[in-house]
Formats: sequence, structure tokens, C-alpha cells
Amino acid sequence: MRELTVLDRSVLDRTPAVCCSPLAATGMSDEDAETTAAVFKALADPGRVRIMNLLANADAPVCVCDLTPELGLSQPTVSFHLKKLVQAGLLEREQRGVWAFYSMNREVLERLGTIFELEGARGGGRT
Amino acid sequence: MRELTVLDRSVLDRTPAVCCSPLAATGMSDEDAETTAAVFKALADPGRVRIMNLLANADAPVCVCDLTPELGLSQPTVSFHLKKLVQAGLLEREQRGVWAFYSMNREVLERLGTIFELEGARGGGRT
Repeated sequence: MRELTVLDRSVLDRTPAVCCSPLAATGMSDEDAETTAAVFKALADPGRVRIMNLLANADAPVCVCDLTPELGLSQPTVSFHLKKLVQAGLLEREQRGVWAFYSMNREVLERLGTIFELEGARGGGRT
Repeated sequence: MRELTVLDRSVLDRTPAVCCSPLAATGMSDEDAETTAAVFKALADPGRVRIMNLLANADAPVCVCDLTPELGLSQPTVSFHLKKLVQAGLLEREQRGVWAFYSMNREVLERLGTIFELEGARGGGRT
């Protein structure tokens, strides 16, 4: 069994992989490292980066039917990427009739913004 | 020719995969998406996240001989992870006698800190 003690269930339901401790956090546990790595893994594909980019610039949820032609990828590929991004908690999915609409989970993105922060890691040692 | 206007040459020489456009950047090119995904891929492993964490909290370059016992991974595994992180431009490697010492490329980390920023992407539409 994999350990997932870092997550509580209510978060797990929506955002299984989203945590995340800053890379510079003191006392990072193995579980923190695994959840942080899982988010990076979800984003480790150019198609997914482009999906995130398109949705970051959208004012409203975007239909999968509009994403697919924009990306120049096949519909199954786009659906696969979207599924992985939703599973990682980075996107939110909403069903409207026959189509699914996707939007960025901005709260999660803001939290991820702290990942690369180094302030405080060395007591103000930055130049 | 690939577009690499986001990089200046001096950085490019040392940091082949490090760019990076914010996910919310307008006009992200396919090449931008690829280089951004490459950085995420380099970090998409718990061992590498832990290496980054250890080095973020170090005041000086750390010997590979000290990293290996700290991580509880085999020496070849640690060396493989370190190589990938250096190739991505995230770490710097320095040979001192028989040992290699590693430190975080803080300039690159600071740049990566902008990846998840959403400000400006929608003209102040955040709540």
C-alpha cells in the first residue's frame, strides 16, 4: 500500500495530487515529496502545458469541443490529458449537456506558486 | 530555427531546458510548451524533489557522498537523478577532487517561480 497520509479525504476527492510544499520547505516528508512530484508529473507534457495555458487565458470554462481543434491533437489525446489534469486537481470539469467544460483551479494554482520560492529557506541568504 | 527568444545565450549554454514562460503567458509557442514541460519532467520524481529540497536548505554546495545516505537511495540512482537535474539547468555541479558537489541554481529557481503566476493573464479578473 502506498502511503497517502499527507492528504485528507475531502481534498483527496477533488485534488488527489495537489499539496504542495515549497521545494525549500524544511522538514519535507517522503509523502510531501511524492505529492509534489505527482503534480510535476501531471504537467510534464507539452500538450498539458498548452491546455493549462489556454485555460489560464480563458474568462470562462472552455468546452472540450473548442480545446481539441485549438491544440491540434486528437480528441482521445486531449481527453486523456484533461483527465490527468483533473485528477491532479489542476483543472475543474463541469458537464453541460453532452459536452464537458474545463476551467483552471485557480486556488490550486496560487498554492503551486509557492513551490519555487526560496525565501526563508536560508534565513534571507538570497542576493 | 526554433524560437528561443525567451532565453539569452549565456543562460542557454548552462541551462538547456530552463526557460520558462508562465503557464498564463499569452502567445505561448509550441517550443515554450516543450521547454516548460521538460522542466516539469525533470522534477516529476520524489527523489528529485527531495534532492531539490535538501539543496534548497543548504548554505553551500553539497557532496554527492553526503546526499546519498540522506536520501536512502542507491548511489547510481542518486547520480542519475542529479544528472537529470543538472541537464535541466536546475542544479550546478562542481568537481572537487574525487567528489562532485551540487548546488541549486537559484537564478533559475527564481525564474521558475513565475510559472504559476496568473496575474495579468485576464486583466485583473482574479477574485
